[in-house]
Amino acid sequence: MNNDFTFFIPTKILFGPGKVRELASMTMPGKKALVVISAGKSMRANGYLDTVLDGLQQAGAETVVFDKILPNPVSEHVAEGAQLARSEGCDFVVGLGGGSSIDSAKSIAVMAVNPGEYWDYINGGTGGGKPVENGALPVVAIPTTAGTGTEADPWTVITNTKTQEKVGFGLIPETFPVFSIVDPELMATVPPRLTAFQGMDAFFHAAEGYIATCSQPASDAFALESMRLINEYLPRAVKDGSDMEARSALAWASTQSGLVESTSSCTSEHSMEHALSAFHPDLPHGAGLILLSTAYFSFMAEKKPERFPAMARAMGVNVDALPANQQATAFVPALKRLIENIGLADMTLEEYGIDKSEAPALADNAMTAMGFLFTLDPYTLSRDEVITIFENSFSK
Amino acid sequence: MNNDFTFFIPTKILFGPGKVRELASMTMPGKKALVVISAGKSMRANGYLDTVLDGLQQAGAETVVFDKILPNPVSEHVAEGAQLARSEGCDFVVGLGGGSSIDSAKSIAVMAVNPGEYWDYINGGTGGGKPVENGALPVVAIPTTAGTGTEADPWTVITNTKTQEKVGFGLIPETFPVFSIVDPELMATVPPRLTAFQGMDAFFHAAEGYIATCSQPASDAFALESMRLINEYLPRAVKDGSDMEARSALAWASTQSGLVESTSSCTSEHSMEHALSAFHPDLPHGAGLILLSTAYFSFMAEKKPERFPAMARAMGVNVDALPANQQATAFVPALKRLIENIGLADMTLEEYGIDKSEAPALADNAMTAMGFLFTLDPYTLSRDEVITIFENSFSK
Repeated sequence: MNNDFTFFIPTKILFGPGKVRELASMTMPGKKALVVISAGKSMRANGYLDTVLDGLQQAGAETVVFDKILPNPVSEHVAEGAQLARSEGCDFVVGLGGGSSIDSAKSIAVMAVNPGEYWDYINGGTGGGKPVENGALPVVAIPTTAGTGTEADPWTVITNTKTQEKVGFGLIPETFPVFSIVDPELMATVPPRLTAFQGMDAFFHAAEGYIATCSQPASDAFALESMRLINEYLPRAVKDGSDMEARSALAWASTQSGLVESTSSCTSEHSMEHALSAFHPDLPHGAGLILLSTAYFSFMAEKKPERFPAMARAMGVNVDALPANQQATAFVPALKRLIENIGLADMTLEEYGIDKSEAPALADNAMTAMGFLFTLDPYTLSRDEVITIFENSFSK
Repeated sequence: MNNDFTFFIPTKILFGPGKVRELASMTMPGKKALVVISAGKSMRANGYLDTVLDGLQQAGAETVVFDKILPNPVSEHVAEGAQLARSEGCDFVVGLGGGSSIDSAKSIAVMAVNPGEYWDYINGGTGGGKPVENGALPVVAIPTTAGTGTEADPWTVITNTKTQEKVGFGLIPETFPVFSIVDPELMATVPPRLTAFQGMDAFFHAAEGYIATCSQPASDAFALESMRLINEYLPRAVKDGSDMEARSALAWASTQSGLVESTSSCTSEHSMEHALSAFHPDLPHGAGLILLSTAYFSFMAEKKPERFPAMARAMGVNVDALPANQQATAFVPALKRLIENIGLADMTLEEYGIDKSEAPALADNAMTAMGFLFTLDPYTLSRDEVITIFENSFSK
């Protein structure tokens, strides 16, 4: 047991099918909300935006909508959203949608009350590393996907399109949402392939958080339970999106993986994926993680096997019946089986237009833009080893 | 999975051997602390009080000590502590010691800023049920025992000596500690028998929280892990109090059982114990729970077996190798084995001067003073059944 840690998750999480209707009776953290949603159609088409605007208004808050967020959210929209919040006099920010909208809400909440450019404050890559002097507006999160877990952590990941960097950031406690409403009914319309990508993003938050050197007993418990739930329920939700039992289990697994992010951390697999999707913005984050995962976890299981048997056990493998030298290596086949069970076994990096020759440039981007996560790996990777993991992730 | 719940634990928990020394660098929630400790000698004799006063002063806070708290804390001392806080102008309260001191700190924090008598605000029994209008002063918790978990929940249990009631109370979020420092080194001096009682209190917070009808996925994960840790490490800490690995595991198990209290609840076993120790203040709370436990859990396992196999598994029983009809009943023998492993198999209610003929009066006290917890049992007990559980708890 890692016995030196801080446990701190101030966000109030309201969970349950239909829970979004309780928004109307919540105490709001301000008088006027900037509601941040994606540039896509789904928040309006599914009626989610109306439900949330109604709830906010019934709770006594005025609302302004900012609807420009891209799947890989960019710093230009952070600046634009922050400018809108200031000009409209918004005093809190609501992120409604997937991780991109909620992350943008957090970053907008920071830039609404701080001067200069967002990238001035980023640590890592070309970020200015300037201290944030004025905190952030309060944030409320209402996820409509089960993936990022950002509703239960203080982190936000934004892409700088000029420098092709995708970097995480957060303030403790300011960018923890004041409260989050996790309503699995809002997730029923996510199509199968996206459900699979998002579910695996949550899976890797758990798996990385479990092997990270900064894990703690609570993150371990959260992580193993998330892996168990995703292994059991993700194939069901991919098969039948209206299966509310599966959607509920996945919604909690995703939020719980956010709790892992608050009590442990991602590792370099996430840095590597951020390099991939910074270079190739059409690659969904979850797809990138899946494509890197067997190479990454095989490598780590070989170098530092200690934590892998418990992960295999969480995936339903009868680990105790295996010889000692096969208990750690049982995780990757279980992971491959899960990827197969969600219909993604044939996916390749090549089909997203990514070429093996990019591996050195990807390694360099990963190690500069989000170099910090490499320090949390159970085994410290060299540049050559990072290149090898990228290369091993290609289908041939 | 219970899929309608709130997860909210705003307390920042700093955990680790030696962690109390970080008090000096924490941001204090006020300028002058009322430091609440027990009437015993241990806080001074072990140097814990000096360490904490030094830390608070280095952090820029003035300090006043209130050192009258009894093992079963009483409402008179809440009133007296609150009066001292007001007259000294204290703007936050630090609870240092076992659950009695930290619980008293929470109750004093409430009464320092609210008029009238403490019992006016209590729900249950003869409590007035008056709404608390002014919240509470901020609370800091520094436990020196691994038992109540009060450092990680908003609850406080105080005895009304006039009416012989021992009733729980709390305000969300005000009586959650702002921060808690859980330092296993402060627990090394607890003698074996008390270590055993306190560890079992934490165990039953977990076990009751696991079977409670208001459990949620996070409380389940916390509870099973606490039971596992206590089953493994409590016998070690009882045998060798200086075993810091065991003390650390138990400190976390206890705090984690406090997280169970924040996300689920105790059940009627605690109401019954509070009746026992309200009538017999010399009975340690943990001892009372141990003496009630096999009767209580046997009864519940028979009436509602569903959640018992997982608890037996957490206790190291190879449940899956058992026939289905023995999986639930395997928990109580495992519990008895643990009680034996901590040297308490021979303890009886009779040795604390308690007589079987008190069972009806104890049942009535339990069901009025803390009747609410009976509504959270997996099976709703009748008065006769409560009497039966009390009677079955005697050695003959």
